[in-house]
Amino acid sequence: MSKRLVLLLVCPDQPGIVAHVSHFIFKRGGNIIDSDQHTDFETRTFFMRIEWEMKLNSSARKKLEPEVARFARRFQMKYELFDEDKPCRMAIFVSKQAHCLYDLLVRLKLEELHSNVELIVSNHLDLKSVASHFDIPFYYVPVSPDKKKQAEKRQLELLKRHQVNLIVLARYMQVLSPEFVKVYPNQMINIHHSFLPAFAGAKPYHQAYARGVKLIGATSHYVTEDLDEGPIIGQSVTRVSHRDRVEDLVRKGRDQEKVALAYAVKMHLEHRILAYENKTIVFE
Amino acid sequence: MSKRLVLLLVCPDQPGIVAHVSHFIFKRGGNIIDSDQHTDFETRTFFMRIEWEMKLNSSARKKLEPEVARFARRFQMKYELFDEDKPCRMAIFVSKQAHCLYDLLVRLKLEELHSNVELIVSNHLDLKSVASHFDIPFYYVPVSPDKKKQAEKRQLELLKRHQVNLIVLARYMQVLSPEFVKVYPNQMINIHHSFLPAFAGAKPYHQAYARGVKLIGATSHYVTEDLDEGPIIGQSVTRVSHRDRVEDLVRKGRDQEKVALAYAVKMHLEHRILAYENKTIVFE
Amino acid sequence: MSKRLVLLLVCPDQPGIVAHVSHFIFKRGGNIIDSDQHTDFETRTFFMRIEWEMKLNSSARKKLEPEVARFARRFQMKYELFDEDKPCRMAIFVSKQAHCLYDLLVRLKLEELHSNVELIVSNHLDLKSVASHFDIPFYYVPVSPDKKKQAEKRQLELLKRHQVNLIVLARYMQVLSPEFVKVYPNQMINIHHSFLPAFAGAKPYHQAYARGVKLIGATSHYVTEDLDEGPIIGQSVTRVSHRDRVEDLVRKGRDQEKVALAYAVKMHLEHRILAYENKTIVFE
Amino acid sequence: MSKRLVLLLVCPDQPGIVAHVSHFIFKRGGNIIDSDQHTDFETRTFFMRIEWEMKLNSSARKKLEPEVARFARRFQMKYELFDEDKPCRMAIFVSKQAHCLYDLLVRLKLEELHSNVELIVSNHLDLKSVASHFDIPFYYVPVSPDKKKQAEKRQLELLKRHQVNLIVLARYMQVLSPEFVKVYPNQMINIHHSFLPAFAGAKPYHQAYARGVKLIGATSHYVTEDLDEGPIIGQSVTRVSHRDRVEDLVRKGRDQEKVALAYAVKMHLEHRILAYENKTIVFE
Repeated sequence: MSKRLVLLLVCPDQPGIVAHVSHFIFKRGGNIIDSDQHTDFETRTFFMRIEWEMKLNSSARKKLEPEVARFARRFQMKYELFDEDKPCRMAIFVSKQAHCLYDLLVRLKLEELHSNVELIVSNHLDLKSVASHFDIPFYYVPVSPDKKKQAEKRQLELLKRHQVNLIVLARYMQVLSPEFVKVYPNQMINIHHSFLPAFAGAKPYHQAYARGVKLIGATSHYVTEDLDEGPIIGQSVTRVSHRDRVEDLVRKGRDQEKVALAYAVKMHLEHRILAYENKTIVFE
Repeated sequence: MSKRLVLLLVCPDQPGIVAHVSHFIFKRGGNIIDSDQHTDFETRTFFMRIEWEMKLNSSARKKLEPEVARFARRFQMKYELFDEDKPCRMAIFVSKQAHCLYDLLVRLKLEELHSNVELIVSNHLDLKSVASHFDIPFYYVPVSPDKKKQAEKRQLELLKRHQVNLIVLARYMQVLSPEFVKVYPNQMINIHHSFLPAFAGAKPYHQAYARGVKLIGATSHYVTEDLDEGPIIGQSVTRVSHRDRVEDLVRKGRDQEKVALAYAVKMHLEHRILAYENKTIVFE
Repeated sequence: MSKRLVLLLVCPDQPGIVAHVSHFIFKRGGNIIDSDQHTDFETRTFFMRIEWEMKLNSSARKKLEPEVARFARRFQMKYELFDEDKPCRMAIFVSKQAHCLYDLLVRLKLEELHSNVELIVSNHLDLKSVASHFDIPFYYVPVSPDKKKQAEKRQLELLKRHQVNLIVLARYMQVLSPEFVKVYPNQMINIHHSFLPAFAGAKPYHQAYARGVKLIGATSHYVTEDLDEGPIIGQSVTRVSHRDRVEDLVRKGRDQEKVALAYAVKMHLEHRILAYENKTIVFE
Repeated sequence: MSKRLVLLLVCPDQPGIVAHVSHFIFKRGGNIIDSDQHTDFETRTFFMRIEWEMKLNSSARKKLEPEVARFARRFQMKYELFDEDKPCRMAIFVSKQAHCLYDLLVRLKLEELHSNVELIVSNHLDLKSVASHFDIPFYYVPVSPDKKKQAEKRQLELLKRHQVNLIVLARYMQVLSPEFVKVYPNQMINIHHSFLPAFAGAKPYHQAYARGVKLIGATSHYVTEDLDEGPIIGQSVTRVSHRDRVEDLVRKGRDQEKVALAYAVKMHLEHRILAYENKTIVFE
């Protein structure tokens, strides 16, 4: 049985890493499909993504784990090893706005994105029919200011029950608590509707209109405890002019939001992102 | 003698403005070449740029002024009337960086921009040879922290002597005093090396690198007393990645600076910009 | 009752047109909301789009028609007069590909586009469920090479019965006959999946791959008898690299197709397009 | 003495190539700075660029050559080995247009590009003063239809005398003969002023205007015997509208030409391009 594997790793830079990793794969009969690397010369840190094919039955697959762990220790690597035939289990959080949700679900249907969407969670009922059109379980978890804690408890239960390992906030209009965020480090992707760091916070299109900018955009990023401050994955912009009122910025911005969010989700699902010191390395 | 004129105007919105302006021109034998307008429905303000050709000798030209003033009063217009055959008299301020200066001077030479560059002013001698290659007077006005006032006095004298009506700060690395800025309202264009309002202030490329953005850009704007807060004219961005170090951002950013600055200068020279409440209307 | 009207016109250039049109509106108590014009100096042709509000009951509306016709004759104008409160009646033709259809229907639902979609016509059954999710009548009209004529007859009947005045070919994979095309001049919009005139004809992404281009794109245009030769309305491109296989070009191209098609439909629905000598003037 | 080397290679795909190459470098004390690879799965061809630093005196450098040759034979590699401290020796061919020449020379001066420009060759005298401003030898080689052969002989002599290994055609308006082209395979870069394959041949901006496209662009490519058919390196586009006359397309196109040409030259100088079957792999 031929399997495809991806190894993502970070370690202090030193000679011999590529030689070692590629030799490790070669010795086990693997064929490298794709490989990309990056060295941060300021911090002398080495980053790598390597994808290969090899014949592996399930017992050989199990034996591989400690072997990778061994050379990882030697190079002081942090790493993750992924099986390409085990897609992510995704949850999508939404509120009332439909555009990002439709966009993701159509891309999944067309197999632009490879993932199982286990559930859609919303604090409103507006998008229930979209979920049912695409045959995805929809959970309505209302969030009132005084019962936020309870709502998050319910959300976390749902995520655990469905064994979710990627949460996509597709214009979900609630701020999640630091306790919630901690449970899914670098596993929650948000779309912010401005080209960060410009116009962080609320109503970015209104801010953009007031400032009279000639470009608006959107930013996809991992969610951290600091709102709108997480590692940026993708950014997209488009031109605007004095003719555009706030509602035009909102409309034009939607296209940027869709593109920036879909990009981030795709890169994450293909294990192409390494988050490091509040930045990302994206091996496109 | 056929002359080409441009009228730029702002006034409270009301029915009949276009009818009146276009009739005014028609009655005097003018032929409208180009016309663009904008209504800000929030503030009920009307903006217009109208360009036309008409036969005019110099005495008829003189008579035109009070006639325009009369209907301007009637509609409570602020306006400017330009003769296309009288190009702007431009000064370029530079420090050590050559790219924007070369870019502007080549565009002027190729007649992409129509203006007379009366002088180049610099606080360094590095770019003197560029000025002489393009046959433009170069003035060295050193600026030390304690003699800034004197330097500005000298600069203002030069600008007056050359009857300058547009000052382009082509990566001029000194902040001009509010007193200086006041002399040339909406007649000084600066290029800031970030997509404002992100990364205002010093060292924007270092800020962008530290934040890990995936886009960098440049912003051209009129200079006001508040640094980096003036009305934005043009913005330009380009993609960057984790591979780009600060020096790569600087290099990639230069192309955006050149484009955003040249765009602003071109729009200004063609009398296509109306600055209004810290925004611009650009009639492209 | 305040109504919003749009007049689109083409005529030989001469002094006084703007004055006349704007005076015509002013005299009837109209207030111009937006106005744009263009002069082609080669052919001395004048183009204009003017949008205004005026109080009009239905009998005054009827009287307006011959008045407009009168001054149109005087200036030898071709023109169309639209009531903004009467949206287009659109038909969408599709085959098996879902992305453009979803994109249009979501935009309509979000009111980015203002139109009534009367029906969806397809030569396949694949997208029937999409139509029903959005509550739009779906008609299955199979097209076999030998029965194409019959199929077109059936399609034309459907279009007439639904009083359609805009047909959008959203990746409809059948070529329509010249007889069909003639019925809807400048009322059929197609999306071609290349930046025309490059890669006209079949399988443009394969052609692009074979040529090794670094950009791919999409072109929306009015349909004329000559395939892929109609007046271009919008074009959109994106970068590709040697890493992209044909299937990646197809995937990346979809985003361009969606954007270029939605742009064209929006411009048409807002009566912003004048087709003229196989080109378009788009008053954005 | 620490030296930086780049190896560019193409060979049939097989397991073990990366392991072998990286081990080869590691054994000799080299540290890999950057590495990128690509596999064309259709033709089962493997491409790689690897850049590393190692301590090397000149005798060790000499010994390296046969060692690389040995493993290259084993994997049936075509390869080139470059010393980063030996910059290319460039010639720039121009006619009358100044924009690409200025652009390249300013980038060289600012060290965006690392190369020695040995000479500028032109069939006109217009740009002689530009050459002298940048202190580069200028050779005037007029080309008349009947004496083209002689002119090319003279050009080839100049190129040989200056040991040129990269020729940049910066809007050089003469077609070079197949005999000339053959002397510098994948060592001549041209800028064509359209997004190829659209508007190949003469007067592309006129063609674009006639067709009414909404985008214009430029394409940099290696020169082959078939005019405008060589492997594409970079492409750049910008939006145009019905307002743009041919002269506006020419002006807007210049910016695209500069960018697309500078990109190609930079990629070539950094040994990032592999030309293969009329396409390029560009390891950005």
